[in-house]
Amino acid sequence: MEGDLTLQLRIFDLNCWAIRYLSKRRQERIQLIGDMLRRERFDLVLLQEVWSEQDYSDLKARLGGCYPFSHYFRSGVIGSGLCVFSRFPILDTLLYQYSLNGYPYMLQHGDWFCGKSVGLVIIKISGIVFNVYVTHLHAEYCREKDAYLPHRLVQAWELAQFIRHTSKAADVVLLGGDLNMHPEDVGIRLLRGWTGLRDAFAEATRFEGCEDGCTLIPNNCFTVKTELLPFPLGIRIDYILYKAISSFTVKCEELKTTTGTAPGMDIPFSDHEAVMATLHIQRQGQAAGATLGTAEPMLADVVTEARTEVGVGLRAAQRQRYSTGRMAVLALLLLLLQAAAALGALAGLAAGQPFPKLSFSLLAFLAIGVLLLATGLHLFHTIEVKMLQGTEEQMRMALRALQERP
Amino acid sequence: MEGDLTLQLRIFDLNCWAIRYLSKRRQERIQLIGDMLRRERFDLVLLQEVWSEQDYSDLKARLGGCYPFSHYFRSGVIGSGLCVFSRFPILDTLLYQYSLNGYPYMLQHGDWFCGKSVGLVIIKISGIVFNVYVTHLHAEYCREKDAYLPHRLVQAWELAQFIRHTSKAADVVLLGGDLNMHPEDVGIRLLRGWTGLRDAFAEATRFEGCEDGCTLIPNNCFTVKTELLPFPLGIRIDYILYKAISSFTVKCEELKTTTGTAPGMDIPFSDHEAVMATLHIQRQGQAAGATLGTAEPMLADVVTEARTEVGVGLRAAQRQRYSTGRMAVLALLLLLLQAAAALGALAGLAAGQPFPKLSFSLLAFLAIGVLLLATGLHLFHTIEVKMLQGTEEQMRMALRALQERP
Repeated sequence: MEGDLTLQLRIFDLNCWAIRYLSKRRQERIQLIGDMLRRERFDLVLLQEVWSEQDYSDLKARLGGCYPFSHYFRSGVIGSGLCVFSRFPILDTLLYQYSLNGYPYMLQHGDWFCGKSVGLVIIKISGIVFNVYVTHLHAEYCREKDAYLPHRLVQAWELAQFIRHTSKAADVVLLGGDLNMHPEDVGIRLLRGWTGLRDAFAEATRFEGCEDGCTLIPNNCFTVKTELLPFPLGIRIDYILYKAISSFTVKCEELKTTTGTAPGMDIPFSDHEAVMATLHIQRQGQAAGATLGTAEPMLADVVTEARTEVGVGLRAAQRQRYSTGRMAVLALLLLLLQAAAALGALAGLAAGQPFPKLSFSLLAFLAIGVLLLATGLHLFHTIEVKMLQGTEEQMRMALRALQERP
Repeated sequence: MEGDLTLQLRIFDLNCWAIRYLSKRRQERIQLIGDMLRRERFDLVLLQEVWSEQDYSDLKARLGGCYPFSHYFRSGVIGSGLCVFSRFPILDTLLYQYSLNGYPYMLQHGDWFCGKSVGLVIIKISGIVFNVYVTHLHAEYCREKDAYLPHRLVQAWELAQFIRHTSKAADVVLLGGDLNMHPEDVGIRLLRGWTGLRDAFAEATRFEGCEDGCTLIPNNCFTVKTELLPFPLGIRIDYILYKAISSFTVKCEELKTTTGTAPGMDIPFSDHEAVMATLHIQRQGQAAGATLGTAEPMLADVVTEARTEVGVGLRAAQRQRYSTGRMAVLALLLLLLQAAAALGALAGLAAGQPFPKLSFSLLAFLAIGVLLLATGLHLFHTIEVKMLQGTEEQMRMALRALQERP
């Protein structure tokens, strides 16, 4: 803090990998994270994957002295995992839950149960209004054949739209989180281009940490080494992004990442590396970037690319909607057939019992099970189709607006 | 339209009651609505319960000449039912789906399947930025024992928060829709108080239409007369609300409602009456209301009242979460017991078959069914509890902010 016209802000961002019963040495790591945050006294702390409210409460109790203000975003079955600790009063909050987030039957991936969202907290420091967003997008489980790409793109689009629509009165916009996208992926280009947000790593005057700013590295004892085989240095999927609106400028003075094992300890804080940015905010002149950051002809290409991918997802969802619907109809037909046979037998029309009772009942139960399951899936894929169509149309509208600009 | 500094805007709002296969004389009424909209040439048309995209497309084709811009909001299994027709270009849109919206197992009420949402369209007329919101909240099926009140209050709160956070750069805010709340209900007082929106009916210089501005009246041949017995005049649940931000003023010159049967026809447009407002917008002086409309001590009382109701809902949801969890555990225990018995029989431990095969299999299937159902419900009520807790906490935060203001 250096007076009224210029402000230094230190931000910490980490995906904490704190899944109850599943994450290794969770409680020990949460304690380590708490100790470090207390020692380092950042201005703003943005955490993801704090799935247990108990862990949040423990951190809150531990950090109350240096971070008197905090917020935990609740959503989904397990929670959003998102929380914020702040040295400055939180004036208001809002949560936006992404409309698509994987599939409930992909239990091994579990994203659907998390209610992935973007959380907004509004903070005022020395009269400057900060809109601070924290988020965590759908994970990428297989880069070659990424079945979740359309869902992640819908999330990236909704995130960009949410930021654009809610940040119009802000002086400074900050976004921190695990975006599960590599720096040149279409989703992050879309997010940057459509919001005008800038990447703290790319803009930083000084950098200290893992090579290329990677946040998932082979050197971290908790990462799955086989997944990182194609990327010997690791990958960068955790970001701090920022922009200034109105008459402010923001510069990233320094960006740091942790580098595996925590200082003086035998384990890292998480399977992800933390990202720490020191921003310099000045109230002077015009803001560097207007609303849109990328040159607009390029932005149109990015939106078109994203729209094509959403279209691919849409056709896959339509196929699944059709096949689950057909299965439900077949199960219903089988049930009706059985009902007719049973009624026939009761009325004495058939010569004898066509099936043994046991197989007959088991078949009926099986048909009911398939009917319920297929109907549920059909409804789910109907929602998926609607949301993908909605996003595609919004992107079409955005393209038209981009093309119509003088 | 009267030049640059003053603007007259005519708005039409209607819950169209256009449920495929269920709503009476749907296609005929959609045609009637289209004819009337074409004849009357409003500036903005906000429709709800247009559940079928085909109906929307028909309206769009019919209205293209006078309302060249339109948007349909997709969400949920059936859709959001929300759409907007406009004489002026729609610059941007955003959809926010309410986090709670009834129960999937209440099939007879069906609200859950609709993905109830609030849609935002941004329109610029003569340089004035309009944020136009259209919404439809959860229906009230029994006023004496309204099981959905906590959900509707969460929706009213989320609606208010969404409007507050997204309208900061707007000059004028308009909201139209079927709020399913009577004018003095806590939800609408909360919405008005927390956003500063004013009720066009209460503010109108001239009024013409049903007594007390009612929009669900016994005189309409499609309304269920028994439901309206306690209200001989009908009830008012459809609204147009507005406010000016920055240096604009908005006044409602005239408010009209339809009064049952459409002019020259034997049926009304819908089971609801349409609300039509003529607004007068002026760019001069300071806006009448700041962000908050109600006197603040009163607003704190309203938030407290709403929070109490949300708390009642929270405790009910916690009870249901507990009882569905217990049922799932019991079903699991029964299954385990059966598995043990079957294994025992297989290993020759038991003297004979303890049950006949048929009953044994039926029981196992029943247990599996109960286990799946109870687990699904338990997950659902867990989400419900989280969202109610989240809303309660946001309201607590709002109260603290209200109390801390000088």
